[in-house]
Amino acid sequence: MQATLTVDMGGTRVKLGLARGGVLLWRETLEARSERGLAQLLERLAPLVRAQARGAELAGLGVAFPSLIEPRTGRVLAAYGKYADAPGIDLPAWARREFGLPLAVDNDARCALLGEWRYGAARGRHDAVLVTLGTGIGVATLLDGQLLRGRHGPAGNFGGHLTVNLHGQRCTCGNIGCAEAEASTAALPRLFAATPGREHSALTMAPRLDYAAVFAAAADGDAAALALRAHSLRVWSALTVNLIHAYAPELVLLGGGIMRSAAVILPYVRDYVARHAHTPWGEVTVSGTALGDDAALLGCEVLSFLQREHGGIGGAAAG
Amino acid sequence: MQATLTVDMGGTRVKLGLARGGVLLWRETLEARSERGLAQLLERLAPLVRAQARGAELAGLGVAFPSLIEPRTGRVLAAYGKYADAPGIDLPAWARREFGLPLAVDNDARCALLGEWRYGAARGRHDAVLVTLGTGIGVATLLDGQLLRGRHGPAGNFGGHLTVNLHGQRCTCGNIGCAEAEASTAALPRLFAATPGREHSALTMAPRLDYAAVFAAAADGDAAALALRAHSLRVWSALTVNLIHAYAPELVLLGGGIMRSAAVILPYVRDYVARHAHTPWGEVTVSGTALGDDAALLGCEVLSFLQREHGGIGGAAAG
Repeated sequence: MQATLTVDMGGTRVKLGLARGGVLLWRETLEARSERGLAQLLERLAPLVRAQARGAELAGLGVAFPSLIEPRTGRVLAAYGKYADAPGIDLPAWARREFGLPLAVDNDARCALLGEWRYGAARGRHDAVLVTLGTGIGVATLLDGQLLRGRHGPAGNFGGHLTVNLHGQRCTCGNIGCAEAEASTAALPRLFAATPGREHSALTMAPRLDYAAVFAAAADGDAAALALRAHSLRVWSALTVNLIHAYAPELVLLGGGIMRSAAVILPYVRDYVARHAHTPWGEVTVSGTALGDDAALLGCEVLSFLQREHGGIGGAAAG
Repeated sequence: MQATLTVDMGGTRVKLGLARGGVLLWRETLEARSERGLAQLLERLAPLVRAQARGAELAGLGVAFPSLIEPRTGRVLAAYGKYADAPGIDLPAWARREFGLPLAVDNDARCALLGEWRYGAARGRHDAVLVTLGTGIGVATLLDGQLLRGRHGPAGNFGGHLTVNLHGQRCTCGNIGCAEAEASTAALPRLFAATPGREHSALTMAPRLDYAAVFAAAADGDAAALALRAHSLRVWSALTVNLIHAYAPELVLLGGGIMRSAAVILPYVRDYVARHAHTPWGEVTVSGTALGDDAALLGCEVLSFLQREHGGIGGAAAG
């Protein structure tokens, strides 16, 4: 079995891996400098890819990208404040030209779901939704053992931007009251600024206002942190019910950095789902992910394999 | 080409048709008496089906049912206050036993979408969502030229029960702030009861509190009706954006009885979608339906055809 060079292009860090059969034989992390665009990253990646290609015969490259992707061409559909030049760069052409290798690219939440499906918490499932709770909220959907894409690509992939609060905050996407606008790390400063009693909160002293700080302060009884936590738990729960009602999965996986507080989040979301989701087709399991930060790197190998087996830039997950 | 006997089982009225190539050769309407169950309806239907079968060689029966359906067995997954005995009745077995004919059954919004797709406003489209605004809110989804179902059946079919208002009304489905709970004919009495100034509203005199009355009173400047209209338009618009973000379609069709006020509803929803939906894959059209009340009857012929061609009780829409 040949190894696949996999790349998880985050907004802050870029992870590289040499994956074979779900095992990472080598790994490396780079600063993304995503505010300077994608071209500069590709220049820094090229020698690293070549070095790995000298050591092992590569089957291809798999790339997880933090945006919506057009499935037939691998084109990045939009830049969301990072890698602004990405929509103009043809990644598959770059890989063919530079390394003579096929490149598969898809949204990072989708790659993570493929990883969890093949090697992690969604193994053996055919209908599953993954939610990554972090700076933003990513969603990916597997139905009938295939990634849901639709003809235009983003089907099943934009669930963090379902309105849960009609009278809520305007989101960076342009919509109102998206889950991402109502409870994500990016939204936290704005949420905190609107929280009553914030001036007496320990969070004003926190070196970094993230959900780890919020959950820690809430555990100490901090009133503003408790209010933020209650609001956020409710948003993530309503989002989970919306995804269950939209896609009728048997499994919802919650991952991402915020899930370091899974001990509080999972029981709350499970209880909310048990009370409010209508699932006459059977019970829906809500679980944490199993592969942590490696899910997308490992999923890129699956993506690359599926593309080579079934064609198309994005490939399709076989049942 | 053989004709198909098609049945649209509403909660109040049941429509029968003899459909051939998208034309209704005969039609009949019965009172549903759905509060007395499905078995009594099947008894009244049987002689009508037999009479039609004597006059024409039938290809099969197609049934549109107001509930979620399990695709492999044709089983009704839940009763929603009508046809309470339906989950225990095997409709395909009934048709085989009584008439020796194959029966295809699916949710009524799905049948309407199949009708619009083959003969109406979604002709030539591959990715389309239908919303029926009426007593409840029905949703059906076509992706890549196939009805979205998932392994368990309800994928793409339960969009009226996406939360749009986290702090909203409890829905009959058990969820909070579903579009159906926030703006449907069934929700109207409760919505009106909570509207400030209702005691001075002409709606207190309306023979029937439905959206036709609300839109008429709003056009006359009635303050409570204007508030109800503004809230409802916003709910339906947020629902439309949610469905666009969930399924990435190229077309959203709005149908159902409430769309008799399409002249007000369509421009509002289109403007909201233009301002708030994020669709980097291309423009999404929002339109009214073309087949009106006949969509489900005509779609049942398509459903029956697809089942016979492709197998399965529910059939699959070929691209």
